[in-house]
Amino acid sequence: MIVGRRQTEKPIRWAMVGGGGTSQIGYVHRSAALRDRTFDLVAGAFDIDPERGRAFGVELGVAPERCHADYRALFAAEAARPDGVQAVSIATPNNTHYAIAKAALESGLHVVCEKPLCFSVAEAEELKRVAADKRKIVGVAYGYAGHQMIEQARAMVAAGELGDIRLVNLAFAHGFHSAAVEETNPATKWRVDPTFAGPSYVLGDLGTHPIYIAETIAPHLKIKRLLCARQSFVKSRAPLEDNAVTLMEYDNGAFGTVWCSAVNAGSMHGQKVRIVGAKASLEWWDERPNQLSFEVQDEPVRILERGMGYLARQATAEDRIGAGHPEGLFEAWANLYGRFAVAMEATDRGDRGRLANLRYPDIDAGVEGVRWVEACVRSAEAGGVWIDYR
Amino acid sequence: MIVGRRQTEKPIRWAMVGGGGTSQIGYVHRSAALRDRTFDLVAGAFDIDPERGRAFGVELGVAPERCHADYRALFAAEAARPDGVQAVSIATPNNTHYAIAKAALESGLHVVCEKPLCFSVAEAEELKRVAADKRKIVGVAYGYAGHQMIEQARAMVAAGELGDIRLVNLAFAHGFHSAAVEETNPATKWRVDPTFAGPSYVLGDLGTHPIYIAETIAPHLKIKRLLCARQSFVKSRAPLEDNAVTLMEYDNGAFGTVWCSAVNAGSMHGQKVRIVGAKASLEWWDERPNQLSFEVQDEPVRILERGMGYLARQATAEDRIGAGHPEGLFEAWANLYGRFAVAMEATDRGDRGRLANLRYPDIDAGVEGVRWVEACVRSAEAGGVWIDYR
Amino acid sequence: MIVGRRQTEKPIRWAMVGGGGTSQIGYVHRSAALRDRTFDLVAGAFDIDPERGRAFGVELGVAPERCHADYRALFAAEAARPDGVQAVSIATPNNTHYAIAKAALESGLHVVCEKPLCFSVAEAEELKRVAADKRKIVGVAYGYAGHQMIEQARAMVAAGELGDIRLVNLAFAHGFHSAAVEETNPATKWRVDPTFAGPSYVLGDLGTHPIYIAETIAPHLKIKRLLCARQSFVKSRAPLEDNAVTLMEYDNGAFGTVWCSAVNAGSMHGQKVRIVGAKASLEWWDERPNQLSFEVQDEPVRILERGMGYLARQATAEDRIGAGHPEGLFEAWANLYGRFAVAMEATDRGDRGRLANLRYPDIDAGVEGVRWVEACVRSAEAGGVWIDYR
Amino acid sequence: MIVGRRQTEKPIRWAMVGGGGTSQIGYVHRSAALRDRTFDLVAGAFDIDPERGRAFGVELGVAPERCHADYRALFAAEAARPDGVQAVSIATPNNTHYAIAKAALESGLHVVCEKPLCFSVAEAEELKRVAADKRKIVGVAYGYAGHQMIEQARAMVAAGELGDIRLVNLAFAHGFHSAAVEETNPATKWRVDPTFAGPSYVLGDLGTHPIYIAETIAPHLKIKRLLCARQSFVKSRAPLEDNAVTLMEYDNGAFGTVWCSAVNAGSMHGQKVRIVGAKASLEWWDERPNQLSFEVQDEPVRILERGMGYLARQATAEDRIGAGHPEGLFEAWANLYGRFAVAMEATDRGDRGRLANLRYPDIDAGVEGVRWVEACVRSAEAGGVWIDYR
Ligand SMILES: NC(=O)c1ccc[n+]([C@@H]2O[C@H](COP(=O)([O-])OP(=O)(O)OC[C@H]3O[C@@H](n4cnc5c(N)ncnc54)[C@H](O)[C@@H]3O)[C@@H](O)[C@H]2O)c1
Ligand SMILES: NC(=O)c1ccc[n+]([C@@H]2O[C@H](COP(=O)([O-])OP(=O)(O)OC[C@H]3O[C@@H](n4cnc5c(N)ncnc54)[C@H](O)[C@@H]3O)[C@@H](O)[C@H]2O)c1
Ligand SMILES: NC(=O)c1ccc[n+]([C@@H]2O[C@H](COP(=O)([O-])OP(=O)(O)OC[C@H]3O[C@@H](n4cnc5c(N)ncnc54)[C@H](O)[C@@H]3O)[C@@H](O)[C@H]2O)c1
Ligand SMILES: NC(=O)c1ccc[n+]([C@@H]2O[C@H](COP(=O)([O-])OP(=O)(O)OC[C@H]3O[C@@H](n4cnc5c(N)ncnc54)[C@H](O)[C@@H]3O)[C@@H](O)[C@H]2O)c1
Repeated sequence: MIVGRRQTEKPIRWAMVGGGGTSQIGYVHRSAALRDRTFDLVAGAFDIDPERGRAFGVELGVAPERCHADYRALFAAEAARPDGVQAVSIATPNNTHYAIAKAALESGLHVVCEKPLCFSVAEAEELKRVAADKRKIVGVAYGYAGHQMIEQARAMVAAGELGDIRLVNLAFAHGFHSAAVEETNPATKWRVDPTFAGPSYVLGDLGTHPIYIAETIAPHLKIKRLLCARQSFVKSRAPLEDNAVTLMEYDNGAFGTVWCSAVNAGSMHGQKVRIVGAKASLEWWDERPNQLSFEVQDEPVRILERGMGYLARQATAEDRIGAGHPEGLFEAWANLYGRFAVAMEATDRGDRGRLANLRYPDIDAGVEGVRWVEACVRSAEAGGVWIDYR
Repeated sequence: MIVGRRQTEKPIRWAMVGGGGTSQIGYVHRSAALRDRTFDLVAGAFDIDPERGRAFGVELGVAPERCHADYRALFAAEAARPDGVQAVSIATPNNTHYAIAKAALESGLHVVCEKPLCFSVAEAEELKRVAADKRKIVGVAYGYAGHQMIEQARAMVAAGELGDIRLVNLAFAHGFHSAAVEETNPATKWRVDPTFAGPSYVLGDLGTHPIYIAETIAPHLKIKRLLCARQSFVKSRAPLEDNAVTLMEYDNGAFGTVWCSAVNAGSMHGQKVRIVGAKASLEWWDERPNQLSFEVQDEPVRILERGMGYLARQATAEDRIGAGHPEGLFEAWANLYGRFAVAMEATDRGDRGRLANLRYPDIDAGVEGVRWVEACVRSAEAGGVWIDYR
Repeated sequence: MIVGRRQTEKPIRWAMVGGGGTSQIGYVHRSAALRDRTFDLVAGAFDIDPERGRAFGVELGVAPERCHADYRALFAAEAARPDGVQAVSIATPNNTHYAIAKAALESGLHVVCEKPLCFSVAEAEELKRVAADKRKIVGVAYGYAGHQMIEQARAMVAAGELGDIRLVNLAFAHGFHSAAVEETNPATKWRVDPTFAGPSYVLGDLGTHPIYIAETIAPHLKIKRLLCARQSFVKSRAPLEDNAVTLMEYDNGAFGTVWCSAVNAGSMHGQKVRIVGAKASLEWWDERPNQLSFEVQDEPVRILERGMGYLARQATAEDRIGAGHPEGLFEAWANLYGRFAVAMEATDRGDRGRLANLRYPDIDAGVEGVRWVEACVRSAEAGGVWIDYR
Repeated sequence: MIVGRRQTEKPIRWAMVGGGGTSQIGYVHRSAALRDRTFDLVAGAFDIDPERGRAFGVELGVAPERCHADYRALFAAEAARPDGVQAVSIATPNNTHYAIAKAALESGLHVVCEKPLCFSVAEAEELKRVAADKRKIVGVAYGYAGHQMIEQARAMVAAGELGDIRLVNLAFAHGFHSAAVEETNPATKWRVDPTFAGPSYVLGDLGTHPIYIAETIAPHLKIKRLLCARQSFVKSRAPLEDNAVTLMEYDNGAFGTVWCSAVNAGSMHGQKVRIVGAKASLEWWDERPNQLSFEVQDEPVRILERGMGYLARQATAEDRIGAGHPEGLFEAWANLYGRFAVAMEATDRGDRGRLANLRYPDIDAGVEGVRWVEACVRSAEAGGVWIDYR
C-alpha cells in the first residue's frame, strides 16, 4: 500500500517539454509525477509559445531561468548545471516526439514520452538504440495500464485461471469527435492532420492503449498476422481514420479484434479489454476501473474489486486508499510514474535485480505500439488485407 | 396493448414438426403460438422417434390419430381432412428444414421455420419460389426480433434520430460450448456436425439473429462486401467454427462487425446490437431486453424503457403488462407468432392492405440469413478475404 | 424444466371475476393460468359492466351463457352444472375481494385472489376458516414471488450460506403516481379512495409483495414489533399514503425496513429485496429478475443467473428456456398458477404428501399480508410509534 | 478546469496532527492538500508514538526539528517561528479532535478536522465560538462531498429541476465489519470503543457523510424531528451500534431515511444519496462517482457524466481531466482542500466577497453533524422514539 513514502531515495529532478497551460494531458503528467514527491519539477519548455510557456512554468513554481523557449535550449542549459534535470517528460503533439526524445536521450536524460512514441518503426528502433547506448530508460505514457486491476488480470492469466487464451477483444471507442469538432477546436485539429498526428489518428491515439494493456495481461501472445479496415466518417479527416477495426491472429492460435473509434456517438470512452480463455474470461472497462469481471464458464460471474485481500499481491501493492473507495485515472498514472522513477534510479545505479522485477511501459512497449500502428495502416492502405506481423 | 384479444378472426389450425419433449426450442414455439389462442395445436410429427412423438403429442392434448410418424404422413393426412391444419412450424435440426418446408408449402400450408432456413441460397430461393407459387407465407423464428424495443429502435432510426448510420456493431457470443460439451450432450452434437448443421455452426446458429435485427432496425443498409475469419477452438469441431468475426461494408459507406461465438467463456448470451449514427447511437442487449440505451453525443445517455408513453406507437402496440415489469423472450416470440398469424390470415384473404403494414421475419429474411452465412463461409474458407455480396 | 407438460392430470375448469378488457391485471392472470393448459377458462363475470363483460368473455372464447352479470350469478349457475368451474380467480378492486372470495369458497370453489386479500385480519381469518371448512385452497397473487431466483434465495438461506440473518431490506418504490394522475386516469382513482382500496394505498398495493418474498426467502424470521411512518405527498390522497417507511424488529434480533412508494419519481418499479446475514448478503431486483447478487463478505460479488446448473434443484425446476434467455413477469406468474393447480388437485384428492412439498402464497400468506398492513396503518395513525406484532 | 494552477497566492504552510504512517486516512489528506501545491507540509505531530511520528515526518520531507512529540509541542514551537504553520489538519481518533482543534484555533491556526468534529453539540459550539473569536476557519473532512457531481446535483435542485423535494434517501452501508475484525485489527478497535469513538460508531463514522451531502444538495431542507433505531450485531460492540436506521421529518413536509451500517455483508461501500422531488429524482453512488442518475418521471432516465459541457458551470469548475476519464476519491478531497485554502486566504485577508461565493464543509457543517449524531443516539437510547430536532 502506498501511503506517500517515496520508493526512490530522492525525488528525481524533472522537466517537461510541452504540457503547457492549455494542453490536454500536461496536468495529468504533473499530478502523477509530483504525487508522493516522486519527481521535482524544476525546469521546462512547456509551450510552443515561449512566453506563455515561461509564465506557466513560473506559476507552477519553476524558476524563471529554468523555463526555456524550446527543448534544445532546455537540454543544453540543464546539461550545464550540476543540479540539472535527470529526466524529462514529453507531452507535445506526435510529430515532435522523435526529435525531442532523441535529443533528450543524447543529453543523458531519462525520458517519459507520450504515445505514439514516433511515426515509424525505424524511428522507434533508433530511439531504442540511443537509449541503450546512453543507458537511459524510456517510459511511455500508457497511463491506463497503471490501474491495479490490470496487474490483477495479469496475475490471473499467469496463474492459468483462464486456461489457454483464445480471444482478445479490445476496444477504445469514444464519440467525442462524431462531428467535425476540429473546425472549431484547435486542440483537435492537429490530431487529424498527418503532419502532426502521423500516419494514423485513432489507431495511434487510442488503439495503442489497449494493445499495451493486452500485452501486459497476456505477455505470451504474439501477433502473427493482422488485417485492418479503417474509415474517415468525417470526410475531411482522410487519409486519417476516425474509426478502425483490426483483426489479429496470434501464433498460439488465439484471435483478436481491436475497435478504435472517435465517432462512436455517445460513448464516454469505452476502453474495454476482454480476454477469453478456454475456462474463463476477464473483462475490464476504463470507466469502472476498480472492477474486474471474472467469468468462469458454468459458474456465477465474479466482480473483483480493487483493494481487496483476495487479490494478487502485486495488485494491491499500489493501493492508496483501500477497497470500496474509487481510485481513478490519476492514481493509475501516478503508479506508472512511481515505476518510472524506480526504473530510472535502478538504471542509474545499475541495479539489475530491481529492474528485473519491475514492469512498466518501456521502450519495447513504445516500439511495439508504433509497429502495430504501422502494420494496421499498411493493411488498411492495401484495402484491408492480411499482412504478416514481424 | 395486447390483453389477450386475438388479432385474427379464429385460431389457426396448427401442427409442429419436431420440437418434441426433449427438444430445446419446441416449448418456446408452443408457448408463443398458443398465447392468446392465436393458434390451436391439433396435429404434429413431434419427434424423430415416432412413438415418443405420439406420446408427447397426446400429453399436449393432440388427438392420437393426428400424431404422425413423420412429416410426410402428417402433411398427407391433414390435407385429406376438411379441418386439416393450415400452418406448420418446423423445429427440427437444420438439415431437414429444406425438405420439410418445401413439402409443407407444396401441401398448401403456411410455414414457420427455424433458422437457418436451409443450407444454400439456391435452396432458399427455391422455397421462396414455391411459397410465392402456393401463396403461402414462410415465417422464420428470429424470436428475439419480436422484442418491442427493436421496434422502438427501428422507429428512431427511421425518424433520423441517429443521423446517418455509420457503424453496425453486432455480437451474439456466449460461452456455453467453451468445452467440448458435445461429447456428453447429444443435443449439442448435431450442431457441430456439418451433416446436420450445414456449412457453419455459430454463423448460422447465432449470427443470423443479430443480422436480422440489424436489417429490421436499419433496413436501408445494404451489405456491399464482407470478410469473415472463423476458428474452431475446440479442434474436433472443424471444419465448423465455434467463433467467427465478420466485417461488412455497406453501400452507403457504413461499416459493420459481427462477433459470433459459443466459446466466449462466462458470457450468458451476449446478443448485443449497437447502431452508431452521426449524431447518436442505440444499444440493445438481449439479457436486458426491456431497456434501450440512446446515446446522443454531448448529451446524457438516456435509458428508454419498454412500455413507456414516450416510445413510438409501434413500440407499445405489443405491450402486455406495462412499463416497469420485465417482459422476456417468451413475449418476444409471442409477438412474432401473433404477426405470423395475421400474415397467414391476410394472405389467405388476399388482404394486401393489411400485409403492407405488417412486418415479420419472412421468406426474404430467411433467404438473406442463408446468403449471409454462405458469404461468410466462402470468405473464411478463402482465408478471410473480402468478397462481394450480392 | 417445464416444457409444456401439465403437472396436473387435467386442466382445471376455471372462471374469473373481474379482470375485464380494460383491467390492468386480468391479462396477466389469464396468460399465467392458460399457459401449458393448466387451466381452461370456461366462465366468468369479467366486468362491473355486465354487457362489456359478456362481450369480452366471448372474445376470449367463453360460451356466452357462461358469461355472467356478477359473481353471484356466476357461482350459482356454475354450481348447477355438472361441468361447472372448479376454481375462480378474483381480479377486482380491493373492496370486493372479501365478499367474492367468501362466496366462492362457500360455493365450493378454489380461489385465487388478488392482493390485498381483504381489509382486516378479522375478514382474512374468516376466509381462512371458510376455506378450511370447505377444504378449498386460497392462492394469493403475489406474482413476483414465482420467480425462480426467489427459490434460489430461499434455498441458500436455508443452507446457511448467509449465516444468521441480520437485516431485511425491502423496497417497492415506483414513481408512476408522482403527479395526481388519478384526476385523469380512472384506473388509478379507486386505488387512492379508502372505500375501494381499503385502509392503505402503497402499503397494501406494493408492500405486501416484498413482505411475502421475504417470508419466502427467510421463513424463520418473525416480526416482533414494527413502526410505520406514512405520507400523502399528493395531498388529496390523504388519509391514504403514497409513501411509507416501515421498521421491523424480528424476534431473532434481525432488523428490517420496507420502503413503499408510488412517488419515487423516475423509478420504473424498484422492487428490491436485500437479505443481509452475518457472512453474506443476497439481493434481488424485479427489473432484472434473472440475476441474484450473492455477496460474501471478503469475496468477490457473485452474480447468479437463472437456469444455470450451479443453482439449487428447486430453483431450476420451473425453468422454461434455459440460462441466458430472459424470463420475465409472465413466467413468474405462470409458475405460481402451476403451483396453484397442483395444490387444487392435491387438495381435492386429499393427497397430503404432495401438498407437504408444495409451497405457494396461500391463505396464511394472505392473512399475513393483511395483518402487516393493518399493523403498519395502526402505527402510522398513532404518529409512527412502535407497536407489538401478533 | 483545474490544471495545477494554484487558486491561492502562495502555498499555505501546513502541519498535520495524526495521520501517521500506519493510519488509514492520513495519506488521503496529504494527497489532497499537496495536490497542485495548495499547501506545503512543513511540520507535524504525526503519531501517538513520537519516534515513529518523527521518522515518518522526515520521510515525508519535513525537517526533523519540526516533527513534534505531540500537538501541544507542535503548536507552541510553530507559533514561535516567523515562518510557522498557518493551518493544521487533525487526523487522529475521534476523542482527541475537540482538544486538538481548540488548541489549534487558540494558537491562531486554521483547522481542518476529521469527522465527527467532536462528541457533543456543546463542544462543537465551543469550537465555533473560538473559531469566530480567532477569525479562523474550521474545515471538516467530508471528503466525498468534494465530488463534482454533488455540485451538479446542488445546481439542479436549486434550479427547480426536481420540483419540491419530497424524499431524501441516504445510505452509507458497507460490510467490512460484519465479523468482529476489531479482535485482530487494532485500527478497527478504537472505532467500537466509546472512549475513543464517542457516543456512536456508524452514525458518526458513516452517517455524517451523506447527511452533509444532503445538506449540500438541498440546503433548504431542515430536519424537524427524527427517530433512530440502532443495533449491535456484533454483541461486543454494544453500546456502540454497527447498524442504524434513522427516519427524519423535514419542516417542509419532506421525509428522509438514513441507513448506516458496517455489517452490510458484501457491500463495498454503498454510500448512496437519492433525492426525490415532485417531478424528478437524482441519485449518486460513491463507487461510481462520475455518474449522476437524473430520473424525470415519464421520461427516460438520463445518466449525467462528470466533465460534460451540459453540466452546470460550478460542476465543471473543478474538473481535472475531462469527461470519460474517471476521477475518484482523491480528486474529491483535493477539491475540498482547494476550497479550504481559498477560505483560509480569504479569511486572513478579510475578503468577504470571495468567502460569500465559497462553499465548503465548515464549522457549521461540523456542528450539524455532531447535532445529528447526538439526536440519533438520544432517540435510539429512548427505544427508537421521535425526538424534536433543534
Ligand atoms: N496518454 C494519454 O492518455 C494521452 C491523452 C491525451 C494526449 N496524449 C498525447 O499527449 C501528447 C500531447 O497531447 P495533448 O492532447 O496534450 O495536446 P495539446 O495540443 O492539448 O497540447 C500540446 C502542448 O504541447 C505544447 N507544444 C507543442 N509543440 C511544442 C514544442 N515544440 N515544444 C514545446 N511545447 C510544445 C503546446 O503548447 C501545448 O501546451 C500527444 O502526443 C497525445 O497523443 C496522450
Ligand atoms: N430461434 C432460436 O432462437 C433457436 C434456438 C434454439 C434452436 N433453434 C433451431 O431450432 C431447431 C431445433 O433445435 P433444437 O435445439 O430444438 O434441437 P434439438 O435437437 O434439441 O431438438 C430437435 C427436435 O426435433 C426432433 N426431430 C429431429 N428430426 C426430426 C424429424 N425428421 N422429424 C420430426 N422431428 C424430428 C427431435 O426428436 C427433437 O424433438 C434448429 O434448427 C435450431 O437451429 C433456434
Ligand atoms: N398482483 C399484482 O401484481 C397486481 C397488479 C395490479 C393490480 N393488482 C390487484 O388486482 C386487483 C385489480 O386491479 P386492476 O389494476 O386490474 O384494477 P382495474 O381497475 O384496472 O380493473 C378492475 C377490473 O375489475 C372489474 N370489476 C370491478 N368490480 C367488479 C365486480 N364487482 N364484479 C366483476 N368485475 C368487477 C372491472 O370492470 C375491471 O375489469 C386489485 O385488487 C389490485 O390490487 C395486483
Ligand atoms: N473523512 C473520511 O472519509 C474518513 C475516513 C477514515 C477515517 N476518518 C477519520 O479520521 C480520523 C482518523 O482515522 P484513521 O482511520 O486514520 O485512524 P487510525 O487509527 O488508522 O490512525 C490514527 C492516526 O493518528 C495517530 N494518533 C493517535 N493519537 C494521536 C495523538 N494524540 N497525537 C498525534 N497522533 C495521534 C496514530 O498514531 C495514527 O497515525 C478519525 O476521526 C476517523 O473518524 C475519516
